[in-house]
Amino acid sequence: MAQATAARSGKERKRVVILGGGFGGINAALNLAKLPVDVTMVDRKNYHLFQPLLYQVALAVLSPADIAQPIRSLVRDHPNIDVLMDEAVGFDLAEQRVHLKTGVELEYDYLVIATGSTHSYFGKDEWAKLAPGLKTVEDATEIRRRVLLAFELAEREMMEKGTHPALNFVIIGGGPTGVELAGAISDIAKLYMSKDFRHIDPSMAQVLILEGSPNILGAYPPDLQRKAGEQLNALGVRYRTGAHVTDVQPGYVMVGDERIDAVVTLWAAGVQASPLGKLLGVETDRRGCVLVDGYLNPPGHPEIFICGDLAHVEQDGKQVPGVAQPAMQMGRYAAKRIGRLIAADLGSDGSGKDESFRYFDKGDMATIGRKAAVANIQWPFKAHWSGFPAWMTWLVVHIFFLIGFRNRLSVFRQWAWTYLTFSDGARLITGSQELPGWKVEDDPVVEHATRPLDIASPKT
Amino acid sequence: MAQATAARSGKERKRVVILGGGFGGINAALNLAKLPVDVTMVDRKNYHLFQPLLYQVALAVLSPADIAQPIRSLVRDHPNIDVLMDEAVGFDLAEQRVHLKTGVELEYDYLVIATGSTHSYFGKDEWAKLAPGLKTVEDATEIRRRVLLAFELAEREMMEKGTHPALNFVIIGGGPTGVELAGAISDIAKLYMSKDFRHIDPSMAQVLILEGSPNILGAYPPDLQRKAGEQLNALGVRYRTGAHVTDVQPGYVMVGDERIDAVVTLWAAGVQASPLGKLLGVETDRRGCVLVDGYLNPPGHPEIFICGDLAHVEQDGKQVPGVAQPAMQMGRYAAKRIGRLIAADLGSDGSGKDESFRYFDKGDMATIGRKAAVANIQWPFKAHWSGFPAWMTWLVVHIFFLIGFRNRLSVFRQWAWTYLTFSDGARLITGSQELPGWKVEDDPVVEHATRPLDIASPKT
Repeated sequence: MAQATAARSGKERKRVVILGGGFGGINAALNLAKLPVDVTMVDRKNYHLFQPLLYQVALAVLSPADIAQPIRSLVRDHPNIDVLMDEAVGFDLAEQRVHLKTGVELEYDYLVIATGSTHSYFGKDEWAKLAPGLKTVEDATEIRRRVLLAFELAEREMMEKGTHPALNFVIIGGGPTGVELAGAISDIAKLYMSKDFRHIDPSMAQVLILEGSPNILGAYPPDLQRKAGEQLNALGVRYRTGAHVTDVQPGYVMVGDERIDAVVTLWAAGVQASPLGKLLGVETDRRGCVLVDGYLNPPGHPEIFICGDLAHVEQDGKQVPGVAQPAMQMGRYAAKRIGRLIAADLGSDGSGKDESFRYFDKGDMATIGRKAAVANIQWPFKAHWSGFPAWMTWLVVHIFFLIGFRNRLSVFRQWAWTYLTFSDGARLITGSQELPGWKVEDDPVVEHATRPLDIASPKT
Repeated sequence: MAQATAARSGKERKRVVILGGGFGGINAALNLAKLPVDVTMVDRKNYHLFQPLLYQVALAVLSPADIAQPIRSLVRDHPNIDVLMDEAVGFDLAEQRVHLKTGVELEYDYLVIATGSTHSYFGKDEWAKLAPGLKTVEDATEIRRRVLLAFELAEREMMEKGTHPALNFVIIGGGPTGVELAGAISDIAKLYMSKDFRHIDPSMAQVLILEGSPNILGAYPPDLQRKAGEQLNALGVRYRTGAHVTDVQPGYVMVGDERIDAVVTLWAAGVQASPLGKLLGVETDRRGCVLVDGYLNPPGHPEIFICGDLAHVEQDGKQVPGVAQPAMQMGRYAAKRIGRLIAADLGSDGSGKDESFRYFDKGDMATIGRKAAVANIQWPFKAHWSGFPAWMTWLVVHIFFLIGFRNRLSVFRQWAWTYLTFSDGARLITGSQELPGWKVEDDPVVEHATRPLDIASPKT
């Protein structure tokens, strides 16, 4: 352990381990690039994901590669940043070590944990297969598969039997993700599917949001909640609030005693923090988020920084939300704080006196289909916008965020082009060709009963 | 069966069923679009795939959506073409019906079968998981996953143990696909991976082609085979001919008694025809290709056309190859022949006297890395080109082929841009994080032995 001892005595460069390559982790790494530290970034995936646009991958507007970029290429120009595709599974806080899944052990002087959050099915993990959520690229392609396949199966059944199950898409959860998915499904059904199918009428697809709380977009001010509701209704999307889903089954969901048929059910309801918070052995909230002090440290561990969704940060009496902006700011803050601590350690500064983290809230936005959005703007002025102006703001802000990408120009060009023209390229169904609850058992392969197909009357 | 009887009496529009949405099927469909027929196109997938560029998806240059397009959008402007996402599982040739997997039954007046080919592991189906081949989008993303993951695992092991298994990529089969994969892996390792990894030297990756026959690119003239060999060697790709692989195991392959280590093994050796040929109950060759007459009909069935890889067509004493060009030409021919048969049936023409199919061979090309290729040009002049001129020809010809795409301009722009700049976007590892044969069992998760990571000496 000569190496570790030397490192801690300050004679060697300090070692920083960053767990998680999302917004928090990447921003921490890039802000550590110019400091005299050796950084090791650990992520299960080899890419950073621009998650605010993930729903557009799910709805076949964008390809995964449009919004994901290898972590190695993001840090390519910074020789002090190492990247390791692995996963933390335990900590030794006294010895300042992280245990990784493959058995590798990393020693650190400073540790940044930014492993985010995942879905919570509130203990009903069996719902996960029936109602996928939207956190990863794999989730997105699975949602895409189900939504597109529903139209294909309906067309097939219509040609065969002259009827098909109602194209009801049920989205559990009316937060930003639920609203964005709902708007996008509705738009796609009306704008694109209608041109592509001859027998079914895709514009008859119904999208229903089931929200358990009294309001959709609960984090938004009431006037924007109302506007969002109006814009959803204008798209034909229905929503019900105070609707607690009590069961999810293949082909339907239950709200109390009421059965609601669903060809595709999507989950946008609960999230829980990455399990690493609990593995740390420090205090967490009910979602597993780590309670941190003003420096983003868990109590008693000034060398550990919790960033992004995993951090429970209270500010002005409410919790900082688990979205991209605060995660990016926390990552930057942690890097700068580490820089100041090292400087102090070397004797060139004070004794750790520092500004505490403060979330600078520029506002929130949620899109509703292709031409509308709600924007709760906090900076550079305060305003509540909705409709087309909010949607334009959404576009501009995402250009701004994408600037952080290495290939930002091309990513944006591809994205804007694909999004504005709704190009066909990404509408691929990969993987299985079955949907839970679609009664293929009605159509045994062995039977071959004479059911000539009605191809005489295409809807043209 | 009133409908069917009416159809066969010629009083209704003739019904054409097309099985397979590849080059043969799509070209048949588009050439039937203006004829007085109702077309039903059946494919397991919802998209047409531009297969000549599939190896670039496998090697993370392109995204699947760049080279695939929904069949529905390709035929959107043609109201007489129906699309059904389904799969043929049987035929009733006497009643002129196709049985589909879901139980649907399609009646036809004319049937076009263009379901192509798949890998053949020569009866060793257990090799499929160990050495994936390249036919589908799923194959391509699996190959991408394995190749990229090999570098990640080597980096991890290097950081942990100071050593890693040799990065040997073994490609079984030295035809165009094997040569293209080999060149691309070599290029990617040298050009991109080297910039991204700090501890391993990706340019030390070895690519080895094992070809069972006496020559690589067996279908090419000897001078181009020699040139291809030289260009492969210039890239650092080794190849062995007359090397019969006798076993494929996790982590290695056997050639007779010789063991050849392989972190990733890919299959580019055998193909076999779609099983539909045998299901037809007509004569097939040893690969399952249907023996057809000059009109692409199996003997005795002038109403059935076999197109593309599934057809065994002899011309000038040799078999027409199973590549894109002949498939497209066969599809077009079948459509035109159907048009003439209908016209004859209606009495406005002769009695089925028609020109037989003739493959117009414009030549073949195979790329070898980013700047070289071999081109056996047959039209508009005969020439054997290699190196950069052949590679430029390859580019131009693929522009020409892509012209058939609806979004051809954008597809080409995206493709050319991505290909010429080797953008980072597509280098995503999705799915599992394990490789067959990579000894993760050496690194038990539970152990957490003290193996501090060497992060002191990055290769910068």
